Amino acid sequence: MKKLINTAETVLEDALAGVAAAHPELAVDLANRVITRAVRPPDPKVALVSGGGSGHEPLHGGFVGPGMLDAACPGEVFTSPVPDQVLAAAEAVDSGAGVVFVVKNYTGDVMNFELAAELAAERGIEVRTVLVNDDVAVEDSTWTAGRRGTGATVAVEKIAGALAERGAPLDAVAALGERVNAASRSFAIALTGATVPAAGRPGFELAEDEIEVGVGIHGEPGRRREKLRPARELVAEVVSTILTDHHLTAGDEVIALVNGLGGTPLLELYIVFGEVAARLAEHGITVARSLVGNYVTSLDMAGFSLTLTKADAQLLELWNAPVDTPALKRA
Amino acid sequence: MKKLINTAETVLEDALAGVAAAHPELAVDLANRVITRAVRPPDPKVALVSGGGSGHEPLHGGFVGPGMLDAACPGEVFTSPVPDQVLAAAEAVDSGAGVVFVVKNYTGDVMNFELAAELAAERGIEVRTVLVNDDVAVEDSTWTAGRRGTGATVAVEKIAGALAERGAPLDAVAALGERVNAASRSFAIALTGATVPAAGRPGFELAEDEIEVGVGIHGEPGRRREKLRPARELVAEVVSTILTDHHLTAGDEVIALVNGLGGTPLLELYIVFGEVAARLAEHGITVARSLVGNYVTSLDMAGFSLTLTKADAQLLELWNAPVDTPALKRA
Repeated sequence: MKKLINTAETVLEDALAGVAAAHPELAVDLANRVITRAVRPPDPKVALVSGGGSGHEPLHGGFVGPGMLDAACPGEVFTSPVPDQVLAAAEAVDSGAGVVFVVKNYTGDVMNFELAAELAAERGIEVRTVLVNDDVAVEDSTWTAGRRGTGATVAVEKIAGALAERGAPLDAVAALGERVNAASRSFAIALTGATVPAAGRPGFELAEDEIEVGVGIHGEPGRRREKLRPARELVAEVVSTILTDHHLTAGDEVIALVNGLGGTPLLELYIVFGEVAARLAEHGITVARSLVGNYVTSLDMAGFSLTLTKADAQLLELWNAPVDTPALKRA
Repeated sequence: MKKLINTAETVLEDALAGVAAAHPELAVDLANRVITRAVRPPDPKVALVSGGGSGHEPLHGGFVGPGMLDAACPGEVFTSPVPDQVLAAAEAVDSGAGVVFVVKNYTGDVMNFELAAELAAERGIEVRTVLVNDDVAVEDSTWTAGRRGTGATVAVEKIAGALAERGAPLDAVAALGERVNAASRSFAIALTGATVPAAGRPGFELAEDEIEVGVGIHGEPGRRREKLRPARELVAEVVSTILTDHHLTAGDEVIALVNGLGGTPLLELYIVFGEVAARLAEHGITVARSLVGNYVTSLDMAGFSLTLTKADAQLLELWNAPVDTPALKRA
């Protein structure tokens, strides 16, 4: 295993020390492992809290800031945050207007956020939960009942975050988050496995000419393994798979995220995006807004995911709203 | 070779098609391979043009936009742009106020930008060139006489770009770019080699426990190969090497860039940044501003570089100025 770490045991605490040093605009509670905005919003507002296993950076800590999340609670690598940690995050950011938990659909995350919601309720904090389950590759997976939550998390956090920032009430923010999730579908292809530091070797191994089609962000199995093909062919299949599931049709507009899984250069992600835009154009679908880069990674995994969120005027307007986080900024 | 490409021959044109599709705020001249701002600055201003081989994304195309570059000209992967291409970029963005070329110190780049400057002069365009040569690892290298140009390019383009945006004259913008370069030092460590698509295999191979200390962004040899060590030890050596060369002392302030070389996850870059900040603090040096992420990559190479720019009030004020590019945004 070749990694820029001190020890496998201290990966999260060492990384959080780095986040604290790099981002004076964030406050990092190293004891509770909670990242919040250094400057609290001036007026009471619904707070957005997300979290999950580490190893998907910039998700979620990189999305804390005005216009997006109020707090993130990172678990150990590929491991859910514990309920007390999530509770600490909720207590740190609740202004009395309530808290929305954005939870990717993994059994451990769902359970621990649910426990945290109960503990928060006992302390008088109103909580709503938005479950993200956008990955169309498989129904049920290694750590998931139902569909896995992946790239749509970025759109949910951005768009619901923008609404919360404007002072919308708790139920409206949660309902919008659910609407964004329902409007989103994702699919991923891996060229290599990811190596969890504590394991010391890749979660799965692929031959030199082999890819995993429909992989999860922890290396969960996809639909099949096959030979690597040109980007154009891979993207055509990914787009067609998403469109079929999503019932997108000519005239529709989408927000498109071409996301690197951690080990793939931006040069290749742009090639992928070019193919995505071309395939969508053939279907009469317009890319209204897009992101290309590493947003929801899987440690050092090479590969990409595509997320398409069906857009409408409200979603686009909120997508365009100002945001100021380490990983996503818009004036 | 496992890459998300169509063919090795079309990597650049396919990637530029993706950049064009992803960024309506940019204009991509696919024939000349020049990326400019889609909206020209309203008033005449000094134009900043940079370029170099592809494979270092987001450098340079990702830094085109208000507050930074006016144009980028990407060559083939790890190959200099040709003089006509650079000339086309200069002609596209000159408003009569002159053009500053930001050139990383590689023999091919230096030669081709020099030829382009002569051609531009014949057409009545005044050109100044800022040579970036910040890499302290070695004197002379595979494709370089003198020191290589690496991470300082980001600071030069950001800070000189901010001054140009305010309407400063040609000589002042060029002089400031040179001042930023002179205030900057970089050093890189590779954990793996990079694979150029046309070559099909890594430029160099490292054993499973081996690193290249002082590597260049095209895989040029560094100072030595050695065993992988904890991040803390690697960073201590990198910081100490830069401080020695740079004569930084207690009380100094720096802008610090912890840069991923393309295949290293953000989680690890934050661990590196935490160590950088801690080591600098031991020396009494303050990180005034920082960036952590993939800014000057080397295709899929795993590893990092550290760039320290000695800061003063003028450099910090211009570093903080608004910028709106795909890879760097600040309100």
